[in-house]
Amino acid sequence: MTDGTSDAERQRRAEEELLAKVLASFDGTEDERLREVLRSLVTHLHSFIRDVRLTQREWEAAIAFLTAAGHITDDRRQEFILLSDVLGASMQTIAVNNEARGNATEATVFGPFFVEGAPRAELGGDISGGAAGEPCWVEGTVTDTDGSPVSGARIEVWEADEDGFYDVQYSDDRTAARAHLFTDERGWYGFWALTPTPYPIPHDGPVGAMLEATGRSPLRASHLHFMVSSPGLRTLVTHIFVEGDDLLEHDSVFGVKESLIKRFERQPPTAPVPGDRDLGGRTWTRTTFDIVLPPED
Amino acid sequence: MTDGTSDAERQRRAEEELLAKVLASFDGTEDERLREVLRSLVTHLHSFIRDVRLTQREWEAAIAFLTAAGHITDDRRQEFILLSDVLGASMQTIAVNNEARGNATEATVFGPFFVEGAPRAELGGDISGGAAGEPCWVEGTVTDTDGSPVSGARIEVWEADEDGFYDVQYSDDRTAARAHLFTDERGWYGFWALTPTPYPIPHDGPVGAMLEATGRSPLRASHLHFMVSSPGLRTLVTHIFVEGDDLLEHDSVFGVKESLIKRFERQPPTAPVPGDRDLGGRTWTRTTFDIVLPPED
Ligand SMILES: [Fe+2]
Ligand SMILES: [Fe+2]
Repeated sequence: MTDGTSDAERQRRAEEELLAKVLASFDGTEDERLREVLRSLVTHLHSFIRDVRLTQREWEAAIAFLTAAGHITDDRRQEFILLSDVLGASMQTIAVNNEARGNATEATVFGPFFVEGAPRAELGGDISGGAAGEPCWVEGTVTDTDGSPVSGARIEVWEADEDGFYDVQYSDDRTAARAHLFTDERGWYGFWALTPTPYPIPHDGPVGAMLEATGRSPLRASHLHFMVSSPGLRTLVTHIFVEGDDLLEHDSVFGVKESLIKRFERQPPTAPVPGDRDLGGRTWTRTTFDIVLPPED
Repeated sequence: MTDGTSDAERQRRAEEELLAKVLASFDGTEDERLREVLRSLVTHLHSFIRDVRLTQREWEAAIAFLTAAGHITDDRRQEFILLSDVLGASMQTIAVNNEARGNATEATVFGPFFVEGAPRAELGGDISGGAAGEPCWVEGTVTDTDGSPVSGARIEVWEADEDGFYDVQYSDDRTAARAHLFTDERGWYGFWALTPTPYPIPHDGPVGAMLEATGRSPLRASHLHFMVSSPGLRTLVTHIFVEGDDLLEHDSVFGVKESLIKRFERQPPTAPVPGDRDLGGRTWTRTTFDIVLPPED
């Protein structure tokens, strides 16, 4: 060119002018927040394409991946959520929506297996509903960030059975290994559940193929889900994980946080059993999870 | 906390540790390029979520958007390509794959309407195949970046009719307004086509809803598609646009480049007609497009 501009400089300018044009196309967006989100999305998307110098073939592979994800998704299968999960986008969204607050308990992913209207369990009762697995006694307290007990806090708990399946994954209409219960006046709760075991996220679709291509396992670290709420306090969605589980460092959806790893102590058949439950001579485990809720935002 | 770390600092660290964990999960990827692309994708995706402090509701809206895009996509409709187009991602991919090279002609989007095996037109012939529209004489040369004529270069051309539809959008099996031809020994080409007119990208799906919410039009600036190839030279995929078109600044897929805007001069019925074609007393236009191909990468 006669103006002495190098090819590299003209290339850089062309890429930046294109980005500027796309950003300007959103100037007429009435919803300010939508404009902000789309501008940021476009900026990062273009940076990604430019940083890796995305090839035409790779762009085509991305389109094919999204198309396959769309086609496997139906009322019972949500491949886009799985994709968000395995890229850590779900956990990062949880993180930015649960900003650190003093000594409050940390949050983690909600997962796809929560069900509204799970049965109520009494304090000290059994939530397993006949699901197969090693009995596990879980107890703890709910307090606010000042240490005051929260009585009547609602605790929802749910987990997979020892075969790695939630009740809703069976074709019968069973309800098992899920319940809700309320803390007593001292903020205390306790219930019988199952010692958590690992299970894979669905991996027969495009997300599974991506895990395979990257040498990643679809397995989730063993966990028990909690959702804890009380008026005026921030609702907590979290899990507890099992100390010593090999998968803690390789959870497929990045849900593990150090503070959520709990010791599940295996008890001999002869140990005194809470509530004098008859465990038929089986081994069992016990764990403690003290929950701290910050004030609402 | 007793270590004096502020909530804000703990929050920032938690978000960065999460990102680091996700990036590390790709360490076992055998394909080095796949690892590079996924690491960059994850880095930018997490930056986006953190920058806008994406809410849980917005995350859900994004999942619903992708799900709807997946469900409207079939053999004839590709909503993910439309999405890539309206976010400028398609054009940015074109840009990084067609780096500036001296005086080489600029590239633009391929679009969804190219068809393999279009009929051959003779130099000076008519590619309209009976499609409705104002006749337009198009001519020019193909040269390399040193200015040497390229004889026998293959030129594919295709365009919409004056109603804004490509032949493949009609339910009959017509072939119209598309052809291929070859430059002569001087690198010259010329053919009759139709003066380009605007048309909308499909906008009855989630991408159309996004354009609506952001006050953007689905219309593309009027254009005529070219794909030009010759052994040893970089294949060029581009359009020419019509000077004075109101849509040049608002092309829905950001395909317009200054250098690709051409004057289409309207001719009175009485002007001398190339090839002495009988135009039945209609007005017509003429334009010139000189094409420069760089060497292959
Ligand atoms: Fe789970
Ligand atoms: Fe087109």
